[in-house]
Amino acid sequence: MITRLEKLLYRLQSQHACLNWAFAEIKDKPGIVFELGLGLGRTFSHLRAYLPEREIYVFERQIHSYPDCTPEERQLVIGDLAETLPHMAARYAGKVCLVNSDVGSFDKEQNAVMAGIVSGAAGPALAPGAIITSDLPLDIPGTRPLPLPPGAHEERFYLYRKENGS
Amino acid sequence: MITRLEKLLYRLQSQHACLNWAFAEIKDKPGIVFELGLGLGRTFSHLRAYLPEREIYVFERQIHSYPDCTPEERQLVIGDLAETLPHMAARYAGKVCLVNSDVGSFDKEQNAVMAGIVSGAAGPALAPGAIITSDLPLDIPGTRPLPLPPGAHEERFYLYRKENGS
Repeated sequence: MITRLEKLLYRLQSQHACLNWAFAEIKDKPGIVFELGLGLGRTFSHLRAYLPEREIYVFERQIHSYPDCTPEERQLVIGDLAETLPHMAARYAGKVCLVNSDVGSFDKEQNAVMAGIVSGAAGPALAPGAIITSDLPLDIPGTRPLPLPPGAHEERFYLYRKENGS
Repeated sequence: MITRLEKLLYRLQSQHACLNWAFAEIKDKPGIVFELGLGLGRTFSHLRAYLPEREIYVFERQIHSYPDCTPEERQLVIGDLAETLPHMAARYAGKVCLVNSDVGSFDKEQNAVMAGIVSGAAGPALAPGAIITSDLPLDIPGTRPLPLPPGAHEERFYLYRKENGS
């Protein structure tokens, strides 16, 4: 049995571990960052703090983040992800080295829809070797799942890498 | 530097560690449980799961918890804590073995007000040896701070015990 408190705790522990692993992984690679889902802005504040030199684009429908966690205007991509992600993935084709996808909720059907949108649209954006961290399982063509780093809990967060191509 | 993601993560880790420590601590003691602040109901779901035999009263102004984390009508004390807590503390004087106080927000001034309300009103409810877990520092007469258990982070959560009296 897992309580909702533990569910959130394990998800955050996993996200924290996966992101910190990803920061080290992309350290010497060029590329920009996509954050899918801003929410209260906690993860954005983490990305901004640990990747101060990176260009970060944050996708959200409606902004309701903490004032000190709100991206600058130029970093925001506001709208429905089903429209904004394909557009931005084409615009930044092959240029994204890290995607953090955090678009799940407690609504299982909606989660399936969101996972489908990200899986279907994110691919073209990814640079070879790009890392994808996600709160939902994804199936982005050309990527493969990675084992989780220490501190992360199975099925609370997901990690993928874009193959180098052939 | 600590990011907002880490702030929440460390708070949850600390709360989880403190609560699990408290569950063991009160195991063989009679008494009821007060939960101050329901929020989304995550902590209530944790209390309910680990303390299935205990009477639990949950204090909240307005209910907006997940449906599967919503207390039963008879468990709810709805209203302003400044009014409901003194009333319930008198009604259950000396009968409460665990108080989980989770009434903080990102508003520092409001936090000082809430900590004052809990510090001033919870005391009479506490059984000798009762444990108080809190997201805000409290100063309840007759209690003393306890060292945090392993896994908890200093200043992310607080632990107190009611003295046995003299």
